[in-house]
Amino acid sequence: MLSINELKQLRSLRQKKYRNEYQKFLVEGTKSVLEVLQSDFVVEKVYATQQWKNKHPDFFFDTQIVSAKECARISSLSTPPEVFASVQMKPKTEFCADNYQRILLLDGVNYTGNFGTILRTADWFGVEALVCSEDTVELFNPKAIQASMGSFTRVSVFYQDLKTFIDENKDNYTFFGTFMKGKSVRDISFPKKSAIVLGSESHGISDEITRMVNETISIEMAGDAIGRKSAESLNVSLAAAIVCYEMVK
Amino acid sequence: MLSINELKQLRSLRQKKYRNEYQKFLVEGTKSVLEVLQSDFVVEKVYATQQWKNKHPDFFFDTQIVSAKECARISSLSTPPEVFASVQMKPKTEFCADNYQRILLLDGVNYTGNFGTILRTADWFGVEALVCSEDTVELFNPKAIQASMGSFTRVSVFYQDLKTFIDENKDNYTFFGTFMKGKSVRDISFPKKSAIVLGSESHGISDEITRMVNETISIEMAGDAIGRKSAESLNVSLAAAIVCYEMVK
Repeated sequence: MLSINELKQLRSLRQKKYRNEYQKFLVEGTKSVLEVLQSDFVVEKVYATQQWKNKHPDFFFDTQIVSAKECARISSLSTPPEVFASVQMKPKTEFCADNYQRILLLDGVNYTGNFGTILRTADWFGVEALVCSEDTVELFNPKAIQASMGSFTRVSVFYQDLKTFIDENKDNYTFFGTFMKGKSVRDISFPKKSAIVLGSESHGISDEITRMVNETISIEMAGDAIGRKSAESLNVSLAAAIVCYEMVK
Repeated sequence: MLSINELKQLRSLRQKKYRNEYQKFLVEGTKSVLEVLQSDFVVEKVYATQQWKNKHPDFFFDTQIVSAKECARISSLSTPPEVFASVQMKPKTEFCADNYQRILLLDGVNYTGNFGTILRTADWFGVEALVCSEDTVELFNPKAIQASMGSFTRVSVFYQDLKTFIDENKDNYTFFGTFMKGKSVRDISFPKKSAIVLGSESHGISDEITRMVNETISIEMAGDAIGRKSAESLNVSLAAAIVCYEMVK
């Protein structure tokens, strides 16, 4: 059983304000907890129900037993996990272009599910970093961590003003913006150092950033070609997947 | 205001059993309602709040005013819509291979969000039909309709035993199964009549269907190539998007 103070602190990590204050976040569910334990994140403590412990007799990390009710009080997920970990945020580092070949820039992506899926896609295709505008989903949001399915341990994520970022890195990368109209992504030869800008679900890429990209690209819809009305847009996480797929070919 | 009986019937359409009994389903939200009104589905009635009506003075269809509270009672969505329509299901038709060049087969896809997103992707890329196993998400599930963002009006959806389907259509299509390992989707020349099988989120494609496909294909992960661990799997809706993207090139 948890002390009232510990329960309170863990529960407070649902909020960004307290995550920043304590420099800690929660990782929930078996898969994500195992991944974070194998990563270079510092895990402070693992909590699990007795039932979960019984199902995982070989689990190697010291575990505090909690009740299912306590899990439900701490978690903000609709299905509370049976195991979770409190993990230290890493100290903030400066982006260094020498370390990353291919990167994605997220300009105001604000659905946690999309953000987590983009992180997972980047991981799959070997895209090494995301640079996010300040109004993009926060990495340590519990739903983003969950949707990333462990990929947050492998892809570096930075937050900063994208205008400044592009300005400072214009000699390091070729910047491509994804739009409804533009050169077909099929016809692009992505240079080794490529940065793809993806816009928000509702507003796309902001005007300022649009003016700064080197090339505008798009994913053609086939509905047009066969002469019928088709879907108006492609979900940003699907667009990210197709662009990453083309970028690494 | 709705009569108790009408409210009860509309509310019952959240359940598959009653949708089948009445042969009706709900379409919720402005975009989807406008799309269904422009489609060949028969819309029985449109319901909207006074507030919505005021914001859409040019809306052409006869509308019954309902309260926000009534909307919330009828809708199963976490954010109840301000406008919705009751729509007639179309009479069931037999699949006819002459009508569809490119199709997707869904073998037990059971997250409504994924199902709706796959429908939207198919629409975008001009894939004309989905053939679904009986345990795949039901098309008229309110969350699937919502996630499809109107694409359910343009892509034909059939439900039947996939084994029988493949057996009956083996001379009509080349069947490709998507797996974790297989020939890279980049290296496939998809014939004009191609059918792609996508498996369930947790179990993939069933063994029986695996034995029936003509070719096993996969989306390579790049993480391997750059010598690091990477994401274990790609979400089924992302896999669908990449395969459709390749299929229509």
